[in-house]
Amino acid sequence: MAKNAKLLIRAGYIHKEMAGVYSFLPLGLRVLSNIVAIIREEMNTLGAQELHLTALQDPEPWKKSGRWDDKVVDNWFKTKLRAGGEAGLGFTHEEVMMRIMQEYVQSYRDLPILAYQIQTKFRNEERAKSGIIRTREFLMKDLYSFAKSEQEHHALYEKVKGVYAVIFERLGIGKHTYPTFASGGSFSKYSHEFQTLCEAGEDTVYVNEEKRLAVNKEVLNNEVLADLGLKKEELVERTAVEVGNIFEQGTRFSEPLGLTFKDEAGKSVPVLTGAYGIGPARIMGVLVELCSDEKGIIWPQAVAPFKVHLISLGVGRSNSERSAEAFYKTLLQKGISVLLDDRDLRAGEKFADSDLIGIPTRVVMSEKTLEQGKVEVKDRKTGEVRMLTEAELLGSLN
Amino acid sequence: MAKNAKLLIRAGYIHKEMAGVYSFLPLGLRVLSNIVAIIREEMNTLGAQELHLTALQDPEPWKKSGRWDDKVVDNWFKTKLRAGGEAGLGFTHEEVMMRIMQEYVQSYRDLPILAYQIQTKFRNEERAKSGIIRTREFLMKDLYSFAKSEQEHHALYEKVKGVYAVIFERLGIGKHTYPTFASGGSFSKYSHEFQTLCEAGEDTVYVNEEKRLAVNKEVLNNEVLADLGLKKEELVERTAVEVGNIFEQGTRFSEPLGLTFKDEAGKSVPVLTGAYGIGPARIMGVLVELCSDEKGIIWPQAVAPFKVHLISLGVGRSNSERSAEAFYKTLLQKGISVLLDDRDLRAGEKFADSDLIGIPTRVVMSEKTLEQGKVEVKDRKTGEVRMLTEAELLGSLN
Repeated sequence: MAKNAKLLIRAGYIHKEMAGVYSFLPLGLRVLSNIVAIIREEMNTLGAQELHLTALQDPEPWKKSGRWDDKVVDNWFKTKLRAGGEAGLGFTHEEVMMRIMQEYVQSYRDLPILAYQIQTKFRNEERAKSGIIRTREFLMKDLYSFAKSEQEHHALYEKVKGVYAVIFERLGIGKHTYPTFASGGSFSKYSHEFQTLCEAGEDTVYVNEEKRLAVNKEVLNNEVLADLGLKKEELVERTAVEVGNIFEQGTRFSEPLGLTFKDEAGKSVPVLTGAYGIGPARIMGVLVELCSDEKGIIWPQAVAPFKVHLISLGVGRSNSERSAEAFYKTLLQKGISVLLDDRDLRAGEKFADSDLIGIPTRVVMSEKTLEQGKVEVKDRKTGEVRMLTEAELLGSLN
Repeated sequence: MAKNAKLLIRAGYIHKEMAGVYSFLPLGLRVLSNIVAIIREEMNTLGAQELHLTALQDPEPWKKSGRWDDKVVDNWFKTKLRAGGEAGLGFTHEEVMMRIMQEYVQSYRDLPILAYQIQTKFRNEERAKSGIIRTREFLMKDLYSFAKSEQEHHALYEKVKGVYAVIFERLGIGKHTYPTFASGGSFSKYSHEFQTLCEAGEDTVYVNEEKRLAVNKEVLNNEVLADLGLKKEELVERTAVEVGNIFEQGTRFSEPLGLTFKDEAGKSVPVLTGAYGIGPARIMGVLVELCSDEKGIIWPQAVAPFKVHLISLGVGRSNSERSAEAFYKTLLQKGISVLLDDRDLRAGEKFADSDLIGIPTRVVMSEKTLEQGKVEVKDRKTGEVRMLTEAELLGSLN
């Protein structure tokens, strides 16, 4: 089992339902929600509109684009309707986005539009692997851009690309993540992936650290190297996980689905579209792969399920128990998220669980620390231990 | 087509993908999110833990409870795995909740537990009808309670029942919603539904307005009337929509799934469970049925997609356009959500759209209102129109 699944299951973040299908338990949902909140915030800075499409998919629009056939798309989940006919479970949503936009886009004045959702995708993978990095059911942020000209499309594309870099930076994987040239499609020579260097990955990429870019092995050849002005010997082979991707689609979907607009001359023209994905649960898995040690997980501040893990020792001894409860309430009142461990267990067990769960700041209250009028504060990442008064700790957390 | 679907589609809140399958467009997602936020807040006051289970369901636990068979549960969506075998799409989640809890409940000291999720359910309905009131794919809040004794179970049950009343009150359907006796199961004579009186409903209930309770037609007989101390002639027949339900399950699911705990005497005993559902999208549909007139929707404040619909007339005339944009920014800075209509259309069209969309407060800025140093403020519900200065309006909105 992949390290991320092993640690996340042991620490109570996720529960395996079937191969490649994981539920998120309270701790896990908190991390996932933190990741989602950062992505949503950045989508909104783009002026993108959030909507929510369905999982059940009408075959019609997919037949128009040629993607309904299992010989074309081999990872559909399909299901029969009691009322007759069948439906698919969306593995992506281009076709239905086009169909919806058809009702809202008439004129060049209606463009550009950016629309996104954070919604569950289903992919009938032959093999599920790498824990929550590649699953059969997963949350995805998918953004779609709709433009009236190449120029407008490229401006949107570059803007989103910039915001993606900000997102990965905020999520704590910025320095490990490279914009990567990958295979394009009929409408552009390349697509861009965002690849995070990580041994649990399935992709092989060639990285130029200095230029902060990479090339996916699947497109690496002399022509590509010449295109990008790179030399093979400047590149280092690494294993990576694709945490995001951005595609130029041109009229690949707008044309078969009839998404057109009237230009300034009154002529009907297909809209130019782009699609931009990020997998929040996949990023959670990558974070565990990158931020963990032999004792457990080490969450980056931005996504940690709680800021503070408050451990009360000497449960049953009224003094330390009361103090821990009072300090727990103080932290909550100050808006600092805190997990209280007041279980009646040995200190060693509680410390081991705390290291496994990986909340950034561990605070221990015991008879001994209280005698000094202090609490013991340990940084999960550096291991540094300090004795602080409650006021000092509160100051350092804000 | 049901009134709720007709109005919500016309006003751009939802998009019909297939019969009984609706996407939520930006306006619709805002309303749905407001409803969800209220429900989540109240679940958290119960001290319930939020988690997120999967849509794809492993057949195993359902076979144990006897609910996998299509002859027992006729509205499963099922799908084949490429890797072999099949999976269901969860229409509810008792079985997997039991399986997860099995790993976390060992002793009486681990109980009680309340756990909930706000997640998508799939039901292969023979007929989809009533717009978004009965659909094949829908968001549901499902809460489960786990107790060690009848007494503990009943305390939880009553507590949740109380919180349900608060939720419906906050959502603006309190006075139309009745706790309703409905058929129980093997473990309790009755279950409780929360039925909102509404012509679009599918249920027939007998209401006692004074006592604020109702009886579902399906259980109305002399024995039930005697049980509840009601007389047939005190009851009025009404059509209603079930917006919530609460079930006592006893050991119906814990026993076949092996969810037990060690009691104080060290004996292994099955956990007593309860299940508590609310359908946020269904409530959105009911709100439209109840709060609308011939011109469109009239959202209650608590769930409205925006607080203010700011309509700028005289687009192109720089003075009113600039003023509307400046006031738009002011409202946002004050944390007042606002939808700006700066389209270049006739006033009449913009007013008709505003009535259709149903945001509580309509604010018009035009050359004429600006001459008076005022804005025109119209209450969507009462129709009352007032001329206010910007400062007066801001004061009235806070």
